[in-house]
Amino acid sequence: MAGAAARWTTGYGVNGQTFRSAIFIAAIFGLYLATAMLIPAMVDLYYVNEDWKAFSFSAFFIGGISMAAALSTRGNPAPFSKRLGFLVVNLLWVTLAIAGAVPFYLSSVDIGIVDSLFESVSAVTTTGSTVISGLDHIAPGILMWRSLLQWIGGIGIVALGLLMLPFLRIGGFSYFKMESSDTSEKPFARFTVFVQAFFAIYFGLTAVCAVLYGTFGMGTFDAINHAMTTVATAGFSTRDASFGAFDSLPLLWTATVFMAVSGLPYSVLILFAARGRLDALKDPQILAYGVIMASAVLSATVYLRLANGETFSEAITLAAFNMVSVVTTTGYASGDYSQWGPFIFVLVFFLTFLGGCSGSTSGGIKIYRVVIVQSVIRAGIRRLIYPHGVQNIRYGSMPLDAEMVRAVFLFLSSFLALWAIGSIALAATGLDFVTATSGSLTAVANLGPGLGDLIGPAGNFAILNNPAKIILSVLMLMGRLEILVMLVLFSPLFWRA
Amino acid sequence: MAGAAARWTTGYGVNGQTFRSAIFIAAIFGLYLATAMLIPAMVDLYYVNEDWKAFSFSAFFIGGISMAAALSTRGNPAPFSKRLGFLVVNLLWVTLAIAGAVPFYLSSVDIGIVDSLFESVSAVTTTGSTVISGLDHIAPGILMWRSLLQWIGGIGIVALGLLMLPFLRIGGFSYFKMESSDTSEKPFARFTVFVQAFFAIYFGLTAVCAVLYGTFGMGTFDAINHAMTTVATAGFSTRDASFGAFDSLPLLWTATVFMAVSGLPYSVLILFAARGRLDALKDPQILAYGVIMASAVLSATVYLRLANGETFSEAITLAAFNMVSVVTTTGYASGDYSQWGPFIFVLVFFLTFLGGCSGSTSGGIKIYRVVIVQSVIRAGIRRLIYPHGVQNIRYGSMPLDAEMVRAVFLFLSSFLALWAIGSIALAATGLDFVTATSGSLTAVANLGPGLGDLIGPAGNFAILNNPAKIILSVLMLMGRLEILVMLVLFSPLFWRA
Repeated sequence: MAGAAARWTTGYGVNGQTFRSAIFIAAIFGLYLATAMLIPAMVDLYYVNEDWKAFSFSAFFIGGISMAAALSTRGNPAPFSKRLGFLVVNLLWVTLAIAGAVPFYLSSVDIGIVDSLFESVSAVTTTGSTVISGLDHIAPGILMWRSLLQWIGGIGIVALGLLMLPFLRIGGFSYFKMESSDTSEKPFARFTVFVQAFFAIYFGLTAVCAVLYGTFGMGTFDAINHAMTTVATAGFSTRDASFGAFDSLPLLWTATVFMAVSGLPYSVLILFAARGRLDALKDPQILAYGVIMASAVLSATVYLRLANGETFSEAITLAAFNMVSVVTTTGYASGDYSQWGPFIFVLVFFLTFLGGCSGSTSGGIKIYRVVIVQSVIRAGIRRLIYPHGVQNIRYGSMPLDAEMVRAVFLFLSSFLALWAIGSIALAATGLDFVTATSGSLTAVANLGPGLGDLIGPAGNFAILNNPAKIILSVLMLMGRLEILVMLVLFSPLFWRA
Repeated sequence: MAGAAARWTTGYGVNGQTFRSAIFIAAIFGLYLATAMLIPAMVDLYYVNEDWKAFSFSAFFIGGISMAAALSTRGNPAPFSKRLGFLVVNLLWVTLAIAGAVPFYLSSVDIGIVDSLFESVSAVTTTGSTVISGLDHIAPGILMWRSLLQWIGGIGIVALGLLMLPFLRIGGFSYFKMESSDTSEKPFARFTVFVQAFFAIYFGLTAVCAVLYGTFGMGTFDAINHAMTTVATAGFSTRDASFGAFDSLPLLWTATVFMAVSGLPYSVLILFAARGRLDALKDPQILAYGVIMASAVLSATVYLRLANGETFSEAITLAAFNMVSVVTTTGYASGDYSQWGPFIFVLVFFLTFLGGCSGSTSGGIKIYRVVIVQSVIRAGIRRLIYPHGVQNIRYGSMPLDAEMVRAVFLFLSSFLALWAIGSIALAATGLDFVTATSGSLTAVANLGPGLGDLIGPAGNFAILNNPAKIILSVLMLMGRLEILVMLVLFSPLFWRA
């Protein structure tokens, strides 16, 4: 454990300096967030709505606290260690969730503390479950704040997945892939190009999406809001009926395409945008992502056509929009798909487990892990038949060592255990089987809608009691931080010097 | 691949001789089974019921076919290979299921071919889902045949788990444990002692259980039948209301104790019975088994007491009986526990995944795998904190190598994939979410009752359509054969020479 290497990996344990540095970073982040609150304030000023005061006050309040915290914790930064990394990531998301809740609580939307926190957590984790109803008639600033939080949460999760998780040795597979196929430049230069390219793509996708939404019939405000929550695969809408309020084929297909693109790893988009290189498309998770989406859309189309008698064009549009929304864990709905028959109901449930690609803003188990599970099963069957043959577990053409396989096993087990514990806890608050199991799952996978009458695509999470909302908030945060990033904080070992 | 070792492990591929030998073994087994049919025939003769003819005819029919098959396939046996092992195990269970179905189809119980097969598969896999209603009034021979098939299925599964699976390198953990802690004798002598001890214990437990059931108020016939299906943790009852028909505290507690004992690994029972040795109790799955059952019983008791206002003695009796029934995958019910509130409903659902100990007749994922999953999570969290420390995954004090961890990962993934695919297939036949997901799970885990109104503890599988019954039958067989034993047959590699 001694030596220079250990210094950078296990660090010095969690001491005062580590805490101070973590709080300092979170405080600086809080200052940016306070500034972001001025955007909805200006929106409400423009639309002549009293809520501009709530946002302005929130901005000064959070800004003031952040400034005070930053001033009192500045000084020599702690050496960067894994523990500091874990602390910072957790602290950033908690800060984001709490600060994001303040405007909800203070605004004209009449919700309490638990509801404000739930809405904020749901936003920053890009989940998209909402406790606010009557969206069609509420102040525009609040709608903008919800979209903005999701958009910021989307940036955060890509940054976490591509830059932080590989260092913490959790997931972050795509970046590793990119790194190994691209060794031509120096690390720092690559890092800068990388961050610039990411922001260019994230802004660019949002802008193009907004323009297309506008072109195909959405008002400017709706178009901008939906573009932000589409690109973040997050799912908040400015309407109670979500995309059901826009009965337009071109709009649904635009959203479908942008959701599908946003479920791709950013490494692929970056390599394509920055160099015109398509070789990252060889990443096996992308093929699997396509196959899973195509199968889901195809089977849902056939079912809607045959069992429900929809026309083909209606069937394929509804199937594509809603299945892509689920696979990418966006969570938009163009109608209550839980009423489309048991096959769609159960299909949606199991698709929720999978999620999109790693290195994107989507949630769930992530397709690259699904690809590895498939390889484990295939290699396992071969090994049963040829016990003395070498049966490597592969990710595409790359053999995986035991530690990487173990990491996937670890995540899968944690995901399922969290889902089970969450479901039982929700049932203990009085929720029925469908609501408890689908609610826990949609939270851990950061999808948005659950299934059933209460929290399904046509329902609203406001109907739940406070204990259930608190449980779901914890599940959303844990799910977003790949479970383990938060779970380590519960280990006594973490706090030992 | 060459050499003497390969001959015994990968064999010569599946050739004519392998097939012939496998069929010969299944045919000899069919002869025993035909003989067993004379037992319900005698029961029906004794109770003066016409069904004695159906059983006698079935005995001659199956006996004749088996004799013809045995005569036409005798000759030099194939060298024993893994492939022969896989073929034999699959063939034995399919033979057992098909032969077992013949008397159902021919008897006075008016059910078709699919229902007869479903009932037989449910019996021989010790699942206990039934399509026969009006049990209180049907012929005693049929009741006896159902119990007998479950009892034989129980012997089969212990033999498979303790003797065959370790050779096929799937599960069979207990035997390995026993083997490693007991090297004092020669293999063959140990094998003989082992088989004798197993039969003595299996018969003994059944006899003692029957006597106690009789003592506490069951009629002799009911007592014998229930004893057979208790010890096999199988769950068929002679009454439509299952144990709800016997409103007796001592009976419920007797069943609880015998179910709990039967969910223990037979290696433990054998070492205890044969040598008075208790050291096998140190197997970590036994502690976990106790903790899981105790937690389930305790939380269900508290819930029944507080939420439903039962008296303490009623609450703990109902909780213990029904939770132990679920954990051991027996599947008896003393009432419709799916009506006891959402907490019990969801708890039962997740307990179904776990199952009892390996080396017993119970199904599910098995507790020893749950113990290993827990170790994977614990070691994973430690490794995140101390990346350079060695974090072994352990089973108790025994470190597990990567291959063993991979085997658990393989089984867990296969189990969940089969559950998901089964649920989606059942939903495609028109079943609702609760019925489809709980039906698929109860079949793969070999529990018995599902959840919800249709197939819950108060329901009956007769209500399902034929495609659903066929899907469930396949799931029960695959679940019973630890999935992989059957899955290898679907690999083209298996059939390659």
